[in-house]
Amino acid sequence: VRPRFYVPDLDPAAASVPLPEDEAEHLGRVLRLGIGAEIEIFDGRGGLWRAEVVAAGKRSAAVRAIAPVPPAPEIGLPLALVISVLKADKMDDVVRDAVMLGVTGICPVVSDRSEISLSTVERSQRVARWQRIAVSSAKQCGRAVVPIVAPACTIASYLATPGSEVRLICVEPSADVDSVGLPSSNSVGPPFTGGRVLPVQAIAKPASAHVIVGPEGGWTPVELTAARAAGAIPMSLGGRTLRADAAPLVALTALLTTWSEL
Amino acid sequence: VRPRFYVPDLDPAAASVPLPEDEAEHLGRVLRLGIGAEIEIFDGRGGLWRAEVVAAGKRSAAVRAIAPVPPAPEIGLPLALVISVLKADKMDDVVRDAVMLGVTGICPVVSDRSEISLSTVERSQRVARWQRIAVSSAKQCGRAVVPIVAPACTIASYLATPGSEVRLICVEPSADVDSVGLPSSNSVGPPFTGGRVLPVQAIAKPASAHVIVGPEGGWTPVELTAARAAGAIPMSLGGRTLRADAAPLVALTALLTTWSEL
Repeated sequence: VRPRFYVPDLDPAAASVPLPEDEAEHLGRVLRLGIGAEIEIFDGRGGLWRAEVVAAGKRSAAVRAIAPVPPAPEIGLPLALVISVLKADKMDDVVRDAVMLGVTGICPVVSDRSEISLSTVERSQRVARWQRIAVSSAKQCGRAVVPIVAPACTIASYLATPGSEVRLICVEPSADVDSVGLPSSNSVGPPFTGGRVLPVQAIAKPASAHVIVGPEGGWTPVELTAARAAGAIPMSLGGRTLRADAAPLVALTALLTTWSEL
Repeated sequence: VRPRFYVPDLDPAAASVPLPEDEAEHLGRVLRLGIGAEIEIFDGRGGLWRAEVVAAGKRSAAVRAIAPVPPAPEIGLPLALVISVLKADKMDDVVRDAVMLGVTGICPVVSDRSEISLSTVERSQRVARWQRIAVSSAKQCGRAVVPIVAPACTIASYLATPGSEVRLICVEPSADVDSVGLPSSNSVGPPFTGGRVLPVQAIAKPASAHVIVGPEGGWTPVELTAARAAGAIPMSLGGRTLRADAAPLVALTALLTTWSEL
């Protein structure tokens, strides 16, 4: 098995392409690879090549593409996960797993009941961290595409920005919440009272989609109203309440299965 | 929202039913509920009732069922997760999420590449811990059924014990592993070379099923051969390699979606 390196500005025709510093460090200091070592390089946009090391220092390295290699298959539509920011380690897992399932983008949003504020997300440079996790997850799962992690924003400003994609918002069907008296703190959203909630199996495959998953405490009524006004389709993940950190994986898997894209 | 308590030996006709000690402690010491408080009680076998507290001490309490309440819907077939034991916190999450997705049983198994031995699992009373997690997860997700966590055994002895259920074993299709050169340490199984691997969407809904998920390092060839000899159907979760701790959730969600049971 050849180790894989991410080279965003890769020219496969060049005789020597420098690696980004962190990738070069991994190659030289961690894996201790030298000139002539066989590796794989990918550009994050779908290109994967067998390659060799042509220069290796402690903090710098250069490589040369030899021949293209088929990467893990991509899903057949642009699919972004719009996720209300979770606690640190849970969010890391969600980013990692979403990339492994094949999403093409991740949009972190802050909602009323998020446990973290937008300014904290920005100050602590979380987006850069999630982007690094997306790179490492792509390496692990064999994808040559690195999904873009968008800058964080509020769910309100996300919903106010029109897009051509179909937006699917995960909600807890009110019937289930009422009948079993579930604590709202364990639901992926509050009872949805206006409009029909579609089961995930009833969602037809669109040309492009965003899947919107709420925080531990669920969406507020104001957020749900804004989502409906923005044309988002309320979607149910079944009658048993899921933990907020399991909901993204379940929502993505259920949609990809329904669309024969797993 | 009424707090819920698990009362395995519940008689709904009795004027006073004692709570198990840990449930009584939760009622009295944690929630500080007194006589007359309205709660919900469930028997773990599908029965859920509105109830009231009729006696409350620090370590003991008794309740009386008032009227049945509809619980979260159960899936339409017996479905067990047979899971190669993962590291402690990952395994806790897997048990919790599997219960929330609706499994009716969990069978922990130890395989050649498990990171923990059968004697350690037994000595550390993990099964009792997982059973407690199953109870708490049932409470959270609104189920009135508590899935049974079976005693741990080796994958070999599990496979050697015949059952009437359809056994589905998650494997990594060899084509994908070969083409992208994935490290086997990140796959849910080794390349499967003998026999056809079915995509999850092609698995017809059986009367009863076991879903078998391997360890971080994958199954050994000997284990795969034994699985085939035992009639297990190799099943693929798609072309992108999943982390071992995400694989159970993805496998269960994909099957339940395919079978319209989510």
